[in-house]
Amino acid sequence: MANLAEKTIGVVGLGLIGGSFCKTIKKHLGTGCLGLDTDPDTVRKALDEGVIRRGISAGELGECDITVVALHPKQTIAFITEHAAHFKKGSIVMDVCGIKTEIVAAADGLLREQGVRFVGTHPMAGREFSGYAYAQDTLFDHASFIITPSEQTGQEELETVVSLAEAMRFERVVVATPEEHDRIIAFTSQLAHVVSNAYIKSPTAQYQMGFSAGSFLDLTRVAKLNEDMWTDLFMMNGEPLLYELDTIIGHLEEYRDALRAGDHEKLRQLLKQGRILKEKSLELKN
Amino acid sequence: MANLAEKTIGVVGLGLIGGSFCKTIKKHLGTGCLGLDTDPDTVRKALDEGVIRRGISAGELGECDITVVALHPKQTIAFITEHAAHFKKGSIVMDVCGIKTEIVAAADGLLREQGVRFVGTHPMAGREFSGYAYAQDTLFDHASFIITPSEQTGQEELETVVSLAEAMRFERVVVATPEEHDRIIAFTSQLAHVVSNAYIKSPTAQYQMGFSAGSFLDLTRVAKLNEDMWTDLFMMNGEPLLYELDTIIGHLEEYRDALRAGDHEKLRQLLKQGRILKEKSLELKN
Repeated sequence: MANLAEKTIGVVGLGLIGGSFCKTIKKHLGTGCLGLDTDPDTVRKALDEGVIRRGISAGELGECDITVVALHPKQTIAFITEHAAHFKKGSIVMDVCGIKTEIVAAADGLLREQGVRFVGTHPMAGREFSGYAYAQDTLFDHASFIITPSEQTGQEELETVVSLAEAMRFERVVVATPEEHDRIIAFTSQLAHVVSNAYIKSPTAQYQMGFSAGSFLDLTRVAKLNEDMWTDLFMMNGEPLLYELDTIIGHLEEYRDALRAGDHEKLRQLLKQGRILKEKSLELKN
Repeated sequence: MANLAEKTIGVVGLGLIGGSFCKTIKKHLGTGCLGLDTDPDTVRKALDEGVIRRGISAGELGECDITVVALHPKQTIAFITEHAAHFKKGSIVMDVCGIKTEIVAAADGLLREQGVRFVGTHPMAGREFSGYAYAQDTLFDHASFIITPSEQTGQEELETVVSLAEAMRFERVVVATPEEHDRIIAFTSQLAHVVSNAYIKSPTAQYQMGFSAGSFLDLTRVAKLNEDMWTDLFMMNGEPLLYELDTIIGHLEEYRDALRAGDHEKLRQLLKQGRILKEKSLELKN
């Protein structure tokens, strides 16, 4: 694809992710994005701060060569469905949702019928806060950017999205099928949020003053989540997440049973297996 | 108590915790400890590096006004039982174990019969590595120091141990009964290690390349544990840890059941409850 700097990039939804997209593109490409948000105050703020070049309405989406729809999953599907005819013919539309199978299924064919090229993506970054106020041009510095092409995705749009991610300095760009993405994300992200959220529910939590070791803080960091967004993400990824929940519950029961039985050697073996798997996981990462 | 700098402090076991005690005491009190370790190479290294003043044998424990027994739980009980008569009469003996009820029960009466004053303590710090090579004079910088006096503990020995912890610049000094300590530690530390160790056991873990978000890394950091030490700690704290394991398994089943039933609102409520509890927990901390 031609120089990204010559492309007009639009961002729909100037929240944590959309705002950070605008800031990061501005920082590394020097380009101001066109910004669309239902909140006029947010648009004004982004304009005043030079984070976007111009605020636009849905009717002006036709100006964008690349449109990043940075909304929550259900809103993403609703927005793309409603505005399918407004995107520029031949342009690229990306989403940023944390699940991909259902999004790609809803958006890909629909947009292609309109002559628009859809590419599902997942910038793996977040914070315990949401909204434009928390957007940062460093949010993606150590993040992976996952791209989930469908069978219809052409080489040229894939390369354009890869080069955008690289220009934004994501640490890693990974290509996977939507199904692979959802299966792995159920384990590496969704399960972490459920376990963390469950962990803090022990009645003992109210007595932890002064006893909160690093391990406790690590285990419960992501318990503070946006329940509306995460409920949608979980419901849209039921099968893989159910598998992970059943798996960890089954493993926890093994430790529980060994402890209840007073079986020292069994408990030691269970802990040793986990320790070895963690060491292997650390090697995989390198 | 008189000036700590005038006291002779002995450290038994120059591993991660014992070695860090010596380094931290040297740094903040300017005092070299007497060091006892079964490995002559470790003693020589600590001497060469100026971390201890002198290596001693068990027969020389009588020189110490304060003895820190920095061994694993079972070794701690074995060492104190075997050497009860070697400690200086009127001196203070401390342990550093992660569980307290069983240690205090084993050591307190035994030492008092010998005219020695025992104080159970738990410096809440650790690393994913063990041994002298990983000892640091900064290990306790952000750590809590828990003291668990028994009914026999006198004010003077309690104050001495508090002033030692303060001199070593622990972030916080907390006093609790051994039973309170063990109940809370089952939640803030032991459960974290079990959950982390169970988390990494999903077969999906081998596919996580490029998908490992911060949440995954946080959840599995302490999976890399010393299974010998932690098995002892867990077995010595069976009841409280069983309670925490049953509690988190029960909560995880609630999310699992809501997800399986496709109950969007139930799942949202479960996540919201956890989010609110985490926010309260963050307030407690301040």
